[in-house]
Amino acid sequence: MRLADIVTCVILSGAPAIACADEGMWTFNNFPSSKVQQAYGFAPDQTWLDHVRLSSIRLARGCSASLVSPHGLVLTNHHCARACIEQLSTGEHNYAAGGFYAKAADDEIRCPDMEANQLIEISDVTARVKTATDGKDGQAFADALKATEADIAKACSGGDNAVRCDVVDLYHGGVYNLYKYRRFQDVRLVAAPEESIAFFGGDPDNFEFPRYDLDFSLVRIYDGGQPLDSSTNYFAFAGEDAKEGDLVFTSGNPGGTDRLDTISELEYQRDTELPNSLTYLAEVRGVLEEFSELGPEQARIAGDQLFGVANSYKALKGRFAALTDPAILRIKRNDEAVLRARVAADPALKASTGAAWDNIRAAVGHGALLRDRFIMLEGGRGFNSRLFARARQLVRYAAESAKPDGERLREYTEANFPITRQSLLSNAPIYPELEKTTLRLSLTLLQRALGPDDPLVKTMFANRSPGELAADLIDGTTLKDPAVCRRLLNGGQGAIDAANDPLIAFAKLVDADARGVRKDDENNVGAVIDKNSRLIAQARFAIYGTSADPDATFTARLSYGAVKGYDEKGHRVNPFTTLAGAYARATGVEPFALPQSWIDAKPKLNLAQKLNICTTNDIIGGNSGSPVINRNAEVVGLIFDGNIQSLGGDFWFDPTVNRAVAVSTNAIREALSKIYHADRIVTELAHK
Amino acid sequence: MRLADIVTCVILSGAPAIACADEGMWTFNNFPSSKVQQAYGFAPDQTWLDHVRLSSIRLARGCSASLVSPHGLVLTNHHCARACIEQLSTGEHNYAAGGFYAKAADDEIRCPDMEANQLIEISDVTARVKTATDGKDGQAFADALKATEADIAKACSGGDNAVRCDVVDLYHGGVYNLYKYRRFQDVRLVAAPEESIAFFGGDPDNFEFPRYDLDFSLVRIYDGGQPLDSSTNYFAFAGEDAKEGDLVFTSGNPGGTDRLDTISELEYQRDTELPNSLTYLAEVRGVLEEFSELGPEQARIAGDQLFGVANSYKALKGRFAALTDPAILRIKRNDEAVLRARVAADPALKASTGAAWDNIRAAVGHGALLRDRFIMLEGGRGFNSRLFARARQLVRYAAESAKPDGERLREYTEANFPITRQSLLSNAPIYPELEKTTLRLSLTLLQRALGPDDPLVKTMFANRSPGELAADLIDGTTLKDPAVCRRLLNGGQGAIDAANDPLIAFAKLVDADARGVRKDDENNVGAVIDKNSRLIAQARFAIYGTSADPDATFTARLSYGAVKGYDEKGHRVNPFTTLAGAYARATGVEPFALPQSWIDAKPKLNLAQKLNICTTNDIIGGNSGSPVINRNAEVVGLIFDGNIQSLGGDFWFDPTVNRAVAVSTNAIREALSKIYHADRIVTELAHK
Repeated sequence: MRLADIVTCVILSGAPAIACADEGMWTFNNFPSSKVQQAYGFAPDQTWLDHVRLSSIRLARGCSASLVSPHGLVLTNHHCARACIEQLSTGEHNYAAGGFYAKAADDEIRCPDMEANQLIEISDVTARVKTATDGKDGQAFADALKATEADIAKACSGGDNAVRCDVVDLYHGGVYNLYKYRRFQDVRLVAAPEESIAFFGGDPDNFEFPRYDLDFSLVRIYDGGQPLDSSTNYFAFAGEDAKEGDLVFTSGNPGGTDRLDTISELEYQRDTELPNSLTYLAEVRGVLEEFSELGPEQARIAGDQLFGVANSYKALKGRFAALTDPAILRIKRNDEAVLRARVAADPALKASTGAAWDNIRAAVGHGALLRDRFIMLEGGRGFNSRLFARARQLVRYAAESAKPDGERLREYTEANFPITRQSLLSNAPIYPELEKTTLRLSLTLLQRALGPDDPLVKTMFANRSPGELAADLIDGTTLKDPAVCRRLLNGGQGAIDAANDPLIAFAKLVDADARGVRKDDENNVGAVIDKNSRLIAQARFAIYGTSADPDATFTARLSYGAVKGYDEKGHRVNPFTTLAGAYARATGVEPFALPQSWIDAKPKLNLAQKLNICTTNDIIGGNSGSPVINRNAEVVGLIFDGNIQSLGGDFWFDPTVNRAVAVSTNAIREALSKIYHADRIVTELAHK
Repeated sequence: MRLADIVTCVILSGAPAIACADEGMWTFNNFPSSKVQQAYGFAPDQTWLDHVRLSSIRLARGCSASLVSPHGLVLTNHHCARACIEQLSTGEHNYAAGGFYAKAADDEIRCPDMEANQLIEISDVTARVKTATDGKDGQAFADALKATEADIAKACSGGDNAVRCDVVDLYHGGVYNLYKYRRFQDVRLVAAPEESIAFFGGDPDNFEFPRYDLDFSLVRIYDGGQPLDSSTNYFAFAGEDAKEGDLVFTSGNPGGTDRLDTISELEYQRDTELPNSLTYLAEVRGVLEEFSELGPEQARIAGDQLFGVANSYKALKGRFAALTDPAILRIKRNDEAVLRARVAADPALKASTGAAWDNIRAAVGHGALLRDRFIMLEGGRGFNSRLFARARQLVRYAAESAKPDGERLREYTEANFPITRQSLLSNAPIYPELEKTTLRLSLTLLQRALGPDDPLVKTMFANRSPGELAADLIDGTTLKDPAVCRRLLNGGQGAIDAANDPLIAFAKLVDADARGVRKDDENNVGAVIDKNSRLIAQARFAIYGTSADPDATFTARLSYGAVKGYDEKGHRVNPFTTLAGAYARATGVEPFALPQSWIDAKPKLNLAQKLNICTTNDIIGGNSGSPVINRNAEVVGLIFDGNIQSLGGDFWFDPTVNRAVAVSTNAIREALSKIYHADRIVTELAHK
């Protein structure tokens, strides 16, 4: 059914690459207002678009959010503030389990490492990037691209830590835009419900609909020690719930999609990347589950990682299912064959772009050879430890900060380093017992992947088992203390060389190999794919025009759609659930146990209040926390998930069943008022 | 290179299904002596074949072995006796770590649940099975097949527990043979080295070559309380090591291959079965690794499962790599297309067999829908616990033993039940802490796979978490006591109904659903695949003749080949390693720590003695423990592994790099003599 539909859509549109139905994660500078007008009778104008953009917030470590009061109050998901909530918790004050509410303004607590961005300007830098890189290959291409991006970003921010500038690659290199943000690192926790209702249904209900989650939290942006004045741009809560059929928009930062990938890249994901990541996540999950059985404190400190692992596992499983659906790959193959035929039929395009697909396939093949080594030494899997991350950042910062900005590793440029600095100096608690467990596992995996005969492995382990090595490093390091990190960060290469810390020494020991495989990957995989993907993008523009949306890149996107149910296994799924439904689904046992506050408040609630909504908006991971707004730019919902059918959205959008899932903002208001008695905030939200 | 070779071979042979080079796991009644004569100048005659068959032993729970003395002494792998060794171990006497040697005959200890089989007769029953099933479909086909097999087996054994009869399905139903064995359940441990040398190199070196493992153990078959008189048929140890190029045979029981599978079955393995099994194994591995970290006793009791899981994981990973190699599947697709075209071109074959591939594809599709439920409720993954297995066996035996033999579930027929009875009444230790951990995990997986809304899940859990449910069941059951099991086994339905045991109650609770999904699978998946595979097999015989070998079925097979190295990553791999090599590879740290006995004995050893050998024999899992014999039927080696390139052997045989890996028997003799001072056994082995 859904495949027949998409085939029809593709055939009717005549151009395989053109989005159909409500598909599209649109940039703010290429929004198809006329298409929305045609479908829904409303065309957002520039004022509306600017207001929405400025009222939207990106949480730089991977989520979306929005301003919802004149005083810097920000609405996002509970799971987007989860790390902060856990970092502020202790064995005695477990805010994840018990919830949090700052009764007075002074009770709002700063999150150790949250960064919020407000997108204030978009400009086009395609010509500059192209000029710098055209005609180059391999390392020359990679170096030129990096240097140009660093130059552009540095000039844009002017060295101001309160400004963040990113060069954003759109359409796989078809367009480069410069995104200029206000950067806020003083973000404080205001309110969060108990996790048992924020994530009611737990892993079993994750990515499912119907759903009954109050997955929200409120944080506040502070600027110069005071609540941010956001009176000119914020979303008011709508008075009325959205109704079925209503036009709604989501404004957020979808993390990444692969809809424009070539077949060789998709096959690599299907045959190598996804199966390997799934088995990796499954093993980590097993270790963390068993670790959590040791006691409630272990369960608490492993909670955030276990949540993330289980969530990623289910998401990747859905992606793998999409890529092993032969019908989907058949459509993709057909799309690619059509485009290649069009390119081959045009002498100029054939000359410039005819070899692009084969070049990408060869680069993917080289990447497959590097993969294990890259992912272990540089991609994070071999050293899963916050303390190791600190050690590597300190070692690398000392080396990189001595270089010209354009020659540094990307994350150490002046434009990019502030977010790393924040976590490096963060006072978030670190749990050595958990660190040793995750590092022991990742060293085991590294040894398994690289093999015991690898010279680096031999040197690293020096006849110690993974457990012994992990214990030596974690027990011996002093990097748990942010003051030590600050001293080493500010002390330059001299301080690093003088440091007598086993983890610093270890990070130095593995650094040459890690950098080596990264360089190989950047020059011989990334640069080739970038260069040839850009050629394909330009061919696509030449043949199909520029009216499609680009793949997601964790940057601001606006999608339009409607509140709408769908058919599943022969029955109709209603697009709403209610508060009453949560009570009906509760069993009293995790993950279906309602918090006591909900049990107590039940008689006072409007049980008919809509709790969760599903819509046809095209979203993906990273959109979590996105406001769902109506045509008046009032917020009616808060995106927190997609349904299980949306997981193939990485590769294609199926309008018949792909649904975004949101919390109704009126349910949030009802809960704040009657369950959490958060009167101060309810009043603030009512302000118009 | 290897793909080019196989393509050539396929093309030259003209018939895709015909084996080339030394490929083939040949049955004893269809051995291609003339091919061996042609390639190696030696043609095994019937006397030679009978002697080899009768000197070979099948270990019924999944390994191979051979008689190596006139007194029932049996040579197999350490890892084939590993369960026994662990079952006989305690916290104080850890025979897995420290090794075992029965100085006197009286010190030989009975393995709690080992069964040895000697194949004494093969007869053809194809006509009888075909007559019973031809013209039937679905349940009628499944029931008739089961009833006929039970009848044939029962008539063959005559109710004698010392005789085991199996109807063996060869060529996917093209041929049915009746295999009659002597069954021995009194098998005693004689000698086993320390695990650190039996499995030297551990998981990193598993499936690798060069290799340095002394993976052997010796057990003895007792008959009527006395060592078996095997004076007429056993293999003497060869005086000389095998040399490169020597013709060698392996006689063993390859567990299963899928070389004749249709494309839809292979795609199902690639897209569903293997990825799911790999993530399952990865998660179990994570849990068991973390459990092992709790202390040395936990590491000991989890050791056997962890070994099995890690081994399966690496094996399945290799299989997945083979199926995601596009070249291999291309060859398979071509083979199938050629055969289908030949069938379509013959009116009679077209009428009988033309639809067979599509019928199988549809059945595989139905199986995919059942898969999660089947594997959780009936396939063992939802209830990973030895105590649960006992409870289910008791519950089912009471019900099944009341039915006519031909109508019982297969494993409860008179012919098949003795091996289950052995483990049910075994005095092998059961560790409640480990049982709770594995059951907790598998109940978690079951709940995840079936979903919290499944009515059976709701009833099973009754608002308990997986951990609570596992604890209730394991803490509450009395099935740890073999005497209780014996009473319930002998008490029939009345005893089961009267039992006040939570695990018995739980096994009863899930039984209807488990039987239901099994019946659906048997009737609508298994029967359809069996029936249509048989049609394809018959078409293959009609078109290509009957000179190919059948897929492996854990039954006696003979393969021929030569001691031979191979090329890998541009260098030549020598087919031998030596004792000296083990010392050179040792680091002193697990898994590269040699046992103290080896360190002490080093000055006395002939370090040039060959330790491991690789050969071109076509083997697969289940062949572990197979003797490698020369043309004089003397044993020169002991199969314990294949190289990493052999893992694709499930689907095809690549003669250029697929190698079997064996321990040189002279290395075993050297170690028994100079390291373990096992003079009694050395003398027995010298007897000729």
